[in-house]
Amino acid sequence: MSLSVEKTSSGREYKVKDLSQADFGRLEIELAEVEMPGLMACRAEFGPSKPFAGARISGSLHMTIQTAVLIETLTTLGAEVRWCSCNIFSTQDHAAAAIARDSAAVFAWKGETLEEYWWCTERCLDWGEGGGPDLIVDDGGDATLLIHEGVKAEEEYEKTGKVPDPESTDNAEFKIVLTIIRDGLKSDPKKYRKMKERLVGVSEETTTGVKRLYQMQETGTLLFPAINVNDSVTKSKFDNLYGCRHSLPDGLMRATDVMIAGKVAVVCGYGDVGKGCAAALKQAGARVIVTEIDPICALQALMEGLQVLTLEDVVSEADIFVTTTGNKDIIMVDHMRKMKNNAIVCNIGHFDNEIDMLGLETYPGVKRITIKPQTDRWVFPEIKTGIIVLAEGRLMNLGCATGHPSFVMSCSFTNQVNMSTNTHLILHALADASAVGIISLSLVNDTGHCSA
Amino acid sequence: MSLSVEKTSSGREYKVKDLSQADFGRLEIELAEVEMPGLMACRAEFGPSKPFAGARISGSLHMTIQTAVLIETLTTLGAEVRWCSCNIFSTQDHAAAAIARDSAAVFAWKGETLEEYWWCTERCLDWGEGGGPDLIVDDGGDATLLIHEGVKAEEEYEKTGKVPDPESTDNAEFKIVLTIIRDGLKSDPKKYRKMKERLVGVSEETTTGVKRLYQMQETGTLLFPAINVNDSVTKSKFDNLYGCRHSLPDGLMRATDVMIAGKVAVVCGYGDVGKGCAAALKQAGARVIVTEIDPICALQALMEGLQVLTLEDVVSEADIFVTTTGNKDIIMVDHMRKMKNNAIVCNIGHFDNEIDMLGLETYPGVKRITIKPQTDRWVFPEIKTGIIVLAEGRLMNLGCATGHPSFVMSCSFTNQVNMSTNTHLILHALADASAVGIISLSLVNDTGHCSA
Amino acid sequence: MSLSVEKTSSGREYKVKDLSQADFGRLEIELAEVEMPGLMACRAEFGPSKPFAGARISGSLHMTIQTAVLIETLTTLGAEVRWCSCNIFSTQDHAAAAIARDSAAVFAWKGETLEEYWWCTERCLDWGEGGGPDLIVDDGGDATLLIHEGVKAEEEYEKTGKVPDPESTDNAEFKIVLTIIRDGLKSDPKKYRKMKERLVGVSEETTTGVKRLYQMQETGTLLFPAINVNDSVTKSKFDNLYGCRHSLPDGLMRATDVMIAGKVAVVCGYGDVGKGCAAALKQAGARVIVTEIDPICALQALMEGLQVLTLEDVVSEADIFVTTTGNKDIIMVDHMRKMKNNAIVCNIGHFDNEIDMLGLETYPGVKRITIKPQTDRWVFPEIKTGIIVLAEGRLMNLGCATGHPSFVMSCSFTNQVNMSTNTHLILHALADASAVGIISLSLVNDTGHCSA
Amino acid sequence: MSLSVEKTSSGREYKVKDLSQADFGRLEIELAEVEMPGLMACRAEFGPSKPFAGARISGSLHMTIQTAVLIETLTTLGAEVRWCSCNIFSTQDHAAAAIARDSAAVFAWKGETLEEYWWCTERCLDWGEGGGPDLIVDDGGDATLLIHEGVKAEEEYEKTGKVPDPESTDNAEFKIVLTIIRDGLKSDPKKYRKMKERLVGVSEETTTGVKRLYQMQETGTLLFPAINVNDSVTKSKFDNLYGCRHSLPDGLMRATDVMIAGKVAVVCGYGDVGKGCAAALKQAGARVIVTEIDPICALQALMEGLQVLTLEDVVSEADIFVTTTGNKDIIMVDHMRKMKNNAIVCNIGHFDNEIDMLGLETYPGVKRITIKPQTDRWVFPEIKTGIIVLAEGRLMNLGCATGHPSFVMSCSFTNQVNMSTNTHLILHALADASAVGIISLSLVNDTGHCSA
Repeated sequence: MSLSVEKTSSGREYKVKDLSQADFGRLEIELAEVEMPGLMACRAEFGPSKPFAGARISGSLHMTIQTAVLIETLTTLGAEVRWCSCNIFSTQDHAAAAIARDSAAVFAWKGETLEEYWWCTERCLDWGEGGGPDLIVDDGGDATLLIHEGVKAEEEYEKTGKVPDPESTDNAEFKIVLTIIRDGLKSDPKKYRKMKERLVGVSEETTTGVKRLYQMQETGTLLFPAINVNDSVTKSKFDNLYGCRHSLPDGLMRATDVMIAGKVAVVCGYGDVGKGCAAALKQAGARVIVTEIDPICALQALMEGLQVLTLEDVVSEADIFVTTTGNKDIIMVDHMRKMKNNAIVCNIGHFDNEIDMLGLETYPGVKRITIKPQTDRWVFPEIKTGIIVLAEGRLMNLGCATGHPSFVMSCSFTNQVNMSTNTHLILHALADASAVGIISLSLVNDTGHCSA
Repeated sequence: MSLSVEKTSSGREYKVKDLSQADFGRLEIELAEVEMPGLMACRAEFGPSKPFAGARISGSLHMTIQTAVLIETLTTLGAEVRWCSCNIFSTQDHAAAAIARDSAAVFAWKGETLEEYWWCTERCLDWGEGGGPDLIVDDGGDATLLIHEGVKAEEEYEKTGKVPDPESTDNAEFKIVLTIIRDGLKSDPKKYRKMKERLVGVSEETTTGVKRLYQMQETGTLLFPAINVNDSVTKSKFDNLYGCRHSLPDGLMRATDVMIAGKVAVVCGYGDVGKGCAAALKQAGARVIVTEIDPICALQALMEGLQVLTLEDVVSEADIFVTTTGNKDIIMVDHMRKMKNNAIVCNIGHFDNEIDMLGLETYPGVKRITIKPQTDRWVFPEIKTGIIVLAEGRLMNLGCATGHPSFVMSCSFTNQVNMSTNTHLILHALADASAVGIISLSLVNDTGHCSA
Repeated sequence: MSLSVEKTSSGREYKVKDLSQADFGRLEIELAEVEMPGLMACRAEFGPSKPFAGARISGSLHMTIQTAVLIETLTTLGAEVRWCSCNIFSTQDHAAAAIARDSAAVFAWKGETLEEYWWCTERCLDWGEGGGPDLIVDDGGDATLLIHEGVKAEEEYEKTGKVPDPESTDNAEFKIVLTIIRDGLKSDPKKYRKMKERLVGVSEETTTGVKRLYQMQETGTLLFPAINVNDSVTKSKFDNLYGCRHSLPDGLMRATDVMIAGKVAVVCGYGDVGKGCAAALKQAGARVIVTEIDPICALQALMEGLQVLTLEDVVSEADIFVTTTGNKDIIMVDHMRKMKNNAIVCNIGHFDNEIDMLGLETYPGVKRITIKPQTDRWVFPEIKTGIIVLAEGRLMNLGCATGHPSFVMSCSFTNQVNMSTNTHLILHALADASAVGIISLSLVNDTGHCSA
Repeated sequence: MSLSVEKTSSGREYKVKDLSQADFGRLEIELAEVEMPGLMACRAEFGPSKPFAGARISGSLHMTIQTAVLIETLTTLGAEVRWCSCNIFSTQDHAAAAIARDSAAVFAWKGETLEEYWWCTERCLDWGEGGGPDLIVDDGGDATLLIHEGVKAEEEYEKTGKVPDPESTDNAEFKIVLTIIRDGLKSDPKKYRKMKERLVGVSEETTTGVKRLYQMQETGTLLFPAINVNDSVTKSKFDNLYGCRHSLPDGLMRATDVMIAGKVAVVCGYGDVGKGCAAALKQAGARVIVTEIDPICALQALMEGLQVLTLEDVVSEADIFVTTTGNKDIIMVDHMRKMKNNAIVCNIGHFDNEIDMLGLETYPGVKRITIKPQTDRWVFPEIKTGIIVLAEGRLMNLGCATGHPSFVMSCSFTNQVNMSTNTHLILHALADASAVGIISLSLVNDTGHCSA
């Protein structure tokens, strides 16, 4: 798509696939509202007092129907909102269209290139002359990353006149980040520092993003307060577990129509996400094998009757492979070469580095046959058999299906809204005190739920 | 669509939605072949000897990817094939395109009107001058019905000169059947009798179709031999049970994206189909309530921890309703009016008479809002709330998803192929002896599997 | 125990472990009555008309609390009853005491020797001068066997003067049967023929017993009509399945207190009994592996996510082994020698020939350590490790626990009572017509329940 | 039993039911060792260095076979040990006998009176002239309580000359505690203070005991350091969850032989224990209803398809009631009066105050019929129906069965041993610094397992 911002008749900026899908999106948003009692209760309770009046919120979070209900809850509470997706495949175009037309500035479509993805992220953070947002709702930490990298580059530039060099990294995606920052430096060398200045803080949704925040806190590089939404019981023990239990088989079915019963399925990782995935596959009649390095999680898998092995043990006999670890380099191209014909390989962890897509794409003579979008068969030349990779190794539930269902996202997003409203109290107080740190949501509203 | 037959460059007749989808269909057919070992073994074992050489087979059975593999197995065994779907929503257009282009005469598309449906059925049975097929592969018995009604009308016409009167019935669909027969009578008053003459027999796939056959046998009106494929263990205890366990949640998810966990789901009927549906919903985290009039099936439900109630007991508190009974008038409009807002109502039994669609459509002031094809919200005027009906009350797994997965259909279809090959032996023998009856597949190849 | 018949104050014969346990037995019988609605409904419906008035019923069926309720249902319907157990370990002594004191002649105790067992069986069939019973309620066919062998011997003796020679067989148990018949011949050479004369027929409870009957029917040696109770849906699909699902883990826990979760369990055979056992072990958190030679049952196991292997594949890695096949020589001593230390080996099939106890007992240098009754550790000399065998290879649920629970036995026994009452109609009619055959209960009262 | 201490030939003190059961106990201990790899690894790793050399350990913890393996692990590590049970019904007499004969001073038998129970507790803590133990292993906190109450009384007595008055409390059990302390005061008015002096600290096993400790810490009355073993992942998420999933059905079956399938079961509380119980009952085929006041736990129940209601909603329709809350007054006599005939009422929470036994026992005209030890039927006079109460309202898994299985107790007890060995380091350090507090085991060895 051409990367130019469009405007609605009322002057709101947007960039979506097809604004004419807004009616369809609106119908599904209305269905979702019935399934999202937490968010609707927030509207009822906090809507009248408009706690977000005057606040700018930028969100980098899968632009789905459920997120649409979140966005309109934030606007009902008085906020102005700009949004982008946090994954190139996770946008539902009709949801984006409805929000763009009716409620907030949206920059998101299903099937973005990486360049488009970061352009959207930058658009989402850029509120024009007045700088950036007051609050960020982040999922995976890409918006937070962009500001941190931007500030770093601006300070370096100010000191040394050096601009970021995209060629300094091998990581294809980080090249793009550096390019965007470099290009921005010329027009406004204080852009990200102004953002940081205004920003009250960020609330972060995912295990992965939270890990990044703690790393920055430890190294003293965290620039603004953050709230750990992920570790709230009603997020990690609901969204990760029950959400994936629902959306993993949904993604498998929509992508491949394959019968799960009777299959051997390998779930890499047995944290909350892995537990949800393993439960879904077992219940559907698969024989589930878990790979896990944490001894306690491994023991939990055994207590549920699941076999715990290494990937090497089972790579050539399993039919379905799912990565859920939050770590990188889990399934490498050498594993994939040993798999059965038409073995299905997919990832439901946040980032797309669990499956060695680079190794696969660059394997000599490999042939990619796109069955349909987000469902590719890769054939190895020497063995004439192939594997099926979903969503190019990215989040398969959002790439191949529609992500988690509304009800469980209501649990997650209600934390976001509550935290964001609390943010004006808690984070302002922190900011006043010049404190920069991470507040665990579990300390705020989960008291007493240790048994959950 | 305009009801005119088209022809491929090789002269084969067809009528499908879009022949350009043939490549996509071929890719998915190739995936399905890997998942259908039974059919592929039939090709390997029987392909060389071509037992169907010279035989014409007409099939009336959901024109899906899986059926495509069945059709090409039949052609590999030497048959000429014509095909139509047995449900207006169950065709996968890319499957139909691939078969039309490559293998057999197909008359089927997703979203037929009832007129189009019966036109397709007639096209499927009509082999031109030489009359009809040697064998019918039937699913639900519509092809069988058309021939029986046709023969009846021709005999009446010959005797009395009376042609069928579509106005003699209130049933909208049967009006169309009578119209087709009436119109055919003028051009060829012996058409269906010639078909019957040539026909060796029919193999019937479904519980519902088999019931129809036994009724005809009892009343002495069955015109040709039939094989009961349905009661084969590898059909009714696999396809009905495991197939629905897979495809019910698939249909629910694709149609509504609704979270099944935490919902109250009512499964009407606890036969094999109901057992599969109840298992799927329970495993996904729903609380399942069963309605059942057979005391043994009801007791089985209790042994699995399911509550058994009447529909009236729970109509206003449940979230999801699924009919699986094979009987008619299960969920009436008066039930639907009492349901919760956005309760989901759907049917996975063969025929579309389990849910009172006529009552719903003609309810005064009712408003139909199509969320997307096969997903409609119906709003009752007096209460302002509505329900969601899937696939207009027809088979929701085929209407809203892609039906049963390949592996389980391989079990079902392998019965069909084996029986059809046996047909040349068994049924010809029966026909020679002027016998007309129903052979239970279970008598033929399931000996000894009483424990299954 | 000394094998002398005792008499109650009212003159009823019995031989039980301890009559003073009758009060305890009565309390548990009263609890069981609440859990056995089928039998209690029979008492209410048929009790007043006393359809068994004047009839003698001999039963060879596990003398448990549940059977006590069956016996007292038969007496409530007017019958006179004599009873023995059909397994040396399956008697509950307090149940036997209560029945002996209050209701019927009982010859049964937990832990009979084989000699005692067959003495009890003979006592049960012997009604004194008037010959034998009118009806037999058989479980496994031992009572039926004794009469058939007795008649055969008497006829041989009458013709040739030859008496049975116990040394003519290697089977330790059959030696005892021949001895009993030989010894009886001297005092009454027409005893078994008189029994056969009077006998209206037998109703048989188990898969194993039914197989024996069909074999005799095929070879033309069946001496009296029989009713196949086993194949009733409410027996084989309830008692076998749900009964074992309950009583297998019960037996394992009482015998060994072992944690089932996390274990690898092998279930040999996946018929109704195997399905119940596998379900119980899977649900308790074991990883279950099935061995099965029937391809359809094996495919069903796969559809439930169970691995299907041969015993050889897993013999050295599994923790728990259960035989459910109804065949013999399933787990041999050579398997047992390869098992892990303290692997548990048990049988829940009717007969004790699934586990090679003879091979184990005669293994050179093997050491038997009785942990407690029915729980033995067998240590192999060369490897110093051992296995745990339950109930000496006999029915572990009855040997180590209390068998199936009351509710499911009510389903089974209600068939027995209904059939026995029908027997007076059906079997007398058959007998009048000199017909000898097997009536399948499923033909009588299960019409229409094909979907169950 | 007469409360006099006995001595083994080697001079070790004990009081058990029957020392002649020691051989049987030893056999089962040897079986358990194979199932307790954690404890056996502790022996292998720490045994040679004898970290407990010279240390006295008093334990108040269910005197079962599993605990026997714990005790002998402690002695293998060099400790001298005295032991009592922490529940009047939970001792396995053969385990107590084996330990008394071979390893440690034991004062415990199944079916103690409350007087006997506290006498045993006092014996366990009393090491003779040298005062008390160095370490206490506590389960529920009764040993800790006795010392705290003793010290309080001694200080009061020293100040005011006042001795404790058993009549000052209505609580029958606390009367006994006060009596013991009062009687001890006369002979040694510094006994408990000397104990406190020597004591390094206590490690506490249960949720309930830990709550007591935190309360004392908050009120500043905690006299010595404590270690919270309960909140270790490998205790509360294993023992509570998987242990109860195993031992709840075990207790139900041994006590009542009732079929769980088809029943309606109410689980009061959905913490870790409740989750385990609900899972077990659901898997066995019951329909499970949960009562829960914590909204997050309630939502978790819903996500598993369980109905959440109040006890009042279901009291008259359910068949089985289990309390797991850790709170008191859950099932009151007024609830019990409304239950179905033969409804089963039992508790698996630590203390016996969840079920209103006092209200039941004192209900006018109520009749208690003991079916067998720990299984009582209570009949209400006005309705002539009754309920079945297990283990007199105490821990039913230990009262009616043998408690948790060895494997899961190995997980729990390995924490105890590791902590106790650490105690010499950690607690001595604390004590040196005059610190008195509670150390959470989770802080010590569960780092990084937040996903478990």
